[in-house]
Amino acid sequence: MKTLIVHAHPEPKSLNSSLKDLAVSTLEGAGHQVRVSDLYAMNWKAVVDAADYGPDASSPLRVARDSGRAFEAGTLTPDVRAEQQKLLWADTVILQFPLWWYAMPAILKGWVDRVFTHHFGYGVGEHSDTRYGERYGEGTLAGRRALLSVTAGGPAAHYAARGINGPIDDLLFPIHHGILYYPGLEVLPPFVLYGTDRMTEDDYPAVAEAWQQRLLTLESTEPIAFRRQNFGDYEIPSLHLKEGLEPAGRTGFGLHLLG
Amino acid sequence: MKTLIVHAHPEPKSLNSSLKDLAVSTLEGAGHQVRVSDLYAMNWKAVVDAADYGPDASSPLRVARDSGRAFEAGTLTPDVRAEQQKLLWADTVILQFPLWWYAMPAILKGWVDRVFTHHFGYGVGEHSDTRYGERYGEGTLAGRRALLSVTAGGPAAHYAARGINGPIDDLLFPIHHGILYYPGLEVLPPFVLYGTDRMTEDDYPAVAEAWQQRLLTLESTEPIAFRRQNFGDYEIPSLHLKEGLEPAGRTGFGLHLLG
Repeated sequence: MKTLIVHAHPEPKSLNSSLKDLAVSTLEGAGHQVRVSDLYAMNWKAVVDAADYGPDASSPLRVARDSGRAFEAGTLTPDVRAEQQKLLWADTVILQFPLWWYAMPAILKGWVDRVFTHHFGYGVGEHSDTRYGERYGEGTLAGRRALLSVTAGGPAAHYAARGINGPIDDLLFPIHHGILYYPGLEVLPPFVLYGTDRMTEDDYPAVAEAWQQRLLTLESTEPIAFRRQNFGDYEIPSLHLKEGLEPAGRTGFGLHLLG
Repeated sequence: MKTLIVHAHPEPKSLNSSLKDLAVSTLEGAGHQVRVSDLYAMNWKAVVDAADYGPDASSPLRVARDSGRAFEAGTLTPDVRAEQQKLLWADTVILQFPLWWYAMPAILKGWVDRVFTHHFGYGVGEHSDTRYGERYGEGTLAGRRALLSVTAGGPAAHYAARGINGPIDDLLFPIHHGILYYPGLEVLPPFVLYGTDRMTEDDYPAVAEAWQQRLLTLESTEPIAFRRQNFGDYEIPSLHLKEGLEPAGRTGFGLHLLG
């Protein structure tokens, strides 16, 4: 495998950083190639602005159009171009982060906002009566796989089906489906650690073993079975799921899973 | 009303900025007080790091604990303290932003990550057999109201109940419930504009009229009926919704709504 790890925690001695380091050593030890984008260590610029698009920034700025023009012209900033190249190099992408306010830390959201430009992350492919661009299962990153490795401060019960925070699969759906599957990545079931606010060093060996087990079985892990957009399940152009495809009673985000 | 508008778009001539300007003039014209945190204009620091906690940053950094200590000691950075003061001043909070990758732009997520510190945004109140801290309907910001004003590039159909992006209410749930309701804000139904990628200036008068209508009726708008945590609907400490409280067949995020 060729794995890109995108890491988003400010403290090198944190649990998140330990999990990142363990992923590097475990994958390299198994003969895989690994590259790391340690966003804090890189002092990653988190914020989209006109400076991202160089001479292709218009005034007034139009983020989607200008980012696509700069992508096509090769005038995106070097930091963004480097990340796009890493994504094209990789066959597996791991995002390592703490769940802050039920979402990515800002620095990682800024990696998505800046790297997934028009014509790279979205606005790819043609529209017709049977296709609505290349997205949700097709796109620039098709043929690659992605995995979230996430730490959550609160206990697992709060993220269960009836838990007050909402089910973890639903909380992660906007990332899994909306960010990763959208440009074509297949998404593996996430590695989630709960209750990390109360974890101690004594808990780490079991955590490390579980994480290594996931890392060493990535190639045989089945991705989440999201429905592909352009293969008959959706009306075009409304992109409503066709009636009757879902199991009885299923609603919400779960509609977009097969079977 | 005393309204705080937190605005997150890099272009002063954008639709988002026009909606922010219109909110200021409309609310002030109706005799209300308004303050604006224009995050791009303020060059808002988006990224949590040790510098946020001054002398209370420990090594290794522990974000939750250190942010709480700095909050208690009054040693948070002036930019963060100013935002906390604005939130305490306001009775109504409007977040104005484009939906980028089904979530907030990084600069706004960084406002949440940095301003909603431990002992301000979370880690408030005592735990007992009948209470699990003050959150989800109680907390520092209780008694205030919040509203998202969001632009989405794609068409409304894609965000409908069967739409491929997922239902808008579910996509916004992590913000509505997990970020706003958590520290006590009551959340009004969002103002969402769809299809903004294809909007032209000709569309603006109708948009402006709809937005003004929402702004001038904020005080009489009913908030989303999220269930309060500590008032009998949830088991303590699992925080599972008690069996049988939901309408038949309801699952997922919708469990946490009354009736």
